Amino acid sequence: MTRQDRLALSLLVEPGDPRLRDLLLTHEPSEIVAAILRRHRLPGAEMPESWVERGLRLDRAAEAAAARAKAAGLRWVTPGDKEWPAALSDLDHVEPLHGATGAPVGLWLRGVGHLGDLSKRSVAIVGARDCTTYGAECSSDLAADCADAGWTVISGAAFGVDGCAHRGAFLMNAPTIAVLACGADLDYPKPHGALIGRIAEVGVVVSEQSPGGRPLKGRFLSRNRVIAALTQGTVVVEAALRSGSLNTLNWADQLGRTTMALPGPVTSRQSAGAHAAMRAGKAVLVTGGRDVLAELAGPGAEADEQTSQPVTEFDRLPPAARTTLDGLDWATARTVTQIASSVRLSTREVRAALDLLDRRGLVSRAGAEWTLSRRADVG
Amino acid sequence: MTRQDRLALSLLVEPGDPRLRDLLLTHEPSEIVAAILRRHRLPGAEMPESWVERGLRLDRAAEAAAARAKAAGLRWVTPGDKEWPAALSDLDHVEPLHGATGAPVGLWLRGVGHLGDLSKRSVAIVGARDCTTYGAECSSDLAADCADAGWTVISGAAFGVDGCAHRGAFLMNAPTIAVLACGADLDYPKPHGALIGRIAEVGVVVSEQSPGGRPLKGRFLSRNRVIAALTQGTVVVEAALRSGSLNTLNWADQLGRTTMALPGPVTSRQSAGAHAAMRAGKAVLVTGGRDVLAELAGPGAEADEQTSQPVTEFDRLPPAARTTLDGLDWATARTVTQIASSVRLSTREVRAALDLLDRRGLVSRAGAEWTLSRRADVG
Repeated sequence: MTRQDRLALSLLVEPGDPRLRDLLLTHEPSEIVAAILRRHRLPGAEMPESWVERGLRLDRAAEAAAARAKAAGLRWVTPGDKEWPAALSDLDHVEPLHGATGAPVGLWLRGVGHLGDLSKRSVAIVGARDCTTYGAECSSDLAADCADAGWTVISGAAFGVDGCAHRGAFLMNAPTIAVLACGADLDYPKPHGALIGRIAEVGVVVSEQSPGGRPLKGRFLSRNRVIAALTQGTVVVEAALRSGSLNTLNWADQLGRTTMALPGPVTSRQSAGAHAAMRAGKAVLVTGGRDVLAELAGPGAEADEQTSQPVTEFDRLPPAARTTLDGLDWATARTVTQIASSVRLSTREVRAALDLLDRRGLVSRAGAEWTLSRRADVG
Repeated sequence: MTRQDRLALSLLVEPGDPRLRDLLLTHEPSEIVAAILRRHRLPGAEMPESWVERGLRLDRAAEAAAARAKAAGLRWVTPGDKEWPAALSDLDHVEPLHGATGAPVGLWLRGVGHLGDLSKRSVAIVGARDCTTYGAECSSDLAADCADAGWTVISGAAFGVDGCAHRGAFLMNAPTIAVLACGADLDYPKPHGALIGRIAEVGVVVSEQSPGGRPLKGRFLSRNRVIAALTQGTVVVEAALRSGSLNTLNWADQLGRTTMALPGPVTSRQSAGAHAAMRAGKAVLVTGGRDVLAELAGPGAEADEQTSQPVTEFDRLPPAARTTLDGLDWATARTVTQIASSVRLSTREVRAALDLLDRRGLVSRAGAEWTLSRRADVG
């Protein structure tokens, strides 16, 4: 049965191996498993030795995985299961990045949350592990705003921005999703054990790695593709030029998701990667939750941004009235003639303007002399 | 003679008046002056009362201007003069902003600099008067980098970003250009008298206002169009949502100049306007002088930005070698079999990979066991 065949594949092949992605486009999981175990080369495909070697240990590996999954209360979901997020199949059509691509053959889940439902309206908030207090505050606020608006925050439960994003959503009592680079039964990083436990209590902890799988460097890069694919958009809060979160941004970009970055001081190493991504056109600038929600809502809402620069009463005044204001003062009262000559308008123009400004309560009259009224601070 | 007619026009009509721009498209300066003095309506054009009223005082105004110009050592330049910057005529084809447009009829200059030559390769650096120390440092550094690369910095000599931009260029012993909203003989703001004096000593102080002209609010807005038109690009360093420097950015945008903005903390009021401009697509993000020079150099140099994210030795390793590195440790020495099983590669794949990594000096061998070498910190 396919779920079991996919489970076998997850044990036989390092998740994200592009060679498996290619095979799955033309073969059933069962055929591939059978071929690996029988050391058969499938038509038009190589049969990597490492797969065959793992095949020799498949039974032992399957027992170990089952035992760990049982102990940690993990469930195995695959395409066809109600909880499977359809969006993941987008990964089957993306070129490899750092040697990984393709939808996961299946996912191990831990926690009460329904992955399919929670990820339907979700946003990834990722960034530097060694973030600054600025990055920590921004990611927490961003997550809280998104959660408050009904968007599920997805991140990697790492130190720094990831952790702050999960915690920011918790402030709104909203569930989050953590996608791990190690087995879903492990707490990595260790000091985040309580955080990851909390994520499972209200949301869901996800991994394509087998239970007990170690968090190898390459697995963080392939993990990032799952975060990007599960969400409708990715926000990078702080990222140095070499940050792995830029890899998540690249995945989101290749997947046609919304890519966003939060700016910071140009003097901060931790914002250099975010700025570079924006300069390269790989991410749009967002200043907070409001901007992120506008981007996720799509171009429609963008129009609002275009016109979001405030227009004051001053801008709405006719030119002659604005010029006349220039000739007036808070302290010194002036006559129409004095004003006219100082701003180079005709006395008649000034009189008409003062009449208008008076009706708007912007000027005060004392006999033949005029001053600015307190309301006139419209600049 | 036209220079004198243009001087008369500068006294008769508030600089930047769109009605004069329209008249000059179809009439000679001399015709317009004559018409104003004779109270003649010119075909297809109104004859504003304020112009006529000023006509009555023209001789007195001309004498006053001449006296002030002589005292301050100002020179009057107009189209046709060698020093006149051709780029200003672009303003004759731009719609009014805040009731001003059109090329200046002439400019009053103070200082040793040659306006035409200095403005050929120039960039405007503008921003908040009440800038933060962050904005002050960034504008000074930006100006120093641009000046060092042979670009003339043009600004408004105001408090905050403007002043820091002029001073930053002076650090490189480079001349700058200040465009004032008041007469070129005045020091505004007063506490910048020494700075403006220095600008005149090495560069040039510019104004389209008559000598002695007061810095009225409306004149800052029309002054900004001259800064934008003189330069090939405008950078906004810090700007609140209502900052006048965004008006300069709009002028640069309408003139088809390069428009740039420097990001800052999203928590800073003084960066909100710059961020809004970038979100609205009115400015590209720049993180410093290097970016500004790349933008001014045009799309060609942009390609370099696209690929400016560093690629480490790690990225250039074949996948099997990268995976093998994951299985190695600084402290614990491991055998080929241990490595192979931990990273799920075949022993043969691991041997081949170790061979390559050894040649690159990334791994160390002790008997049958391998560790990472110090050089291997390639993440």
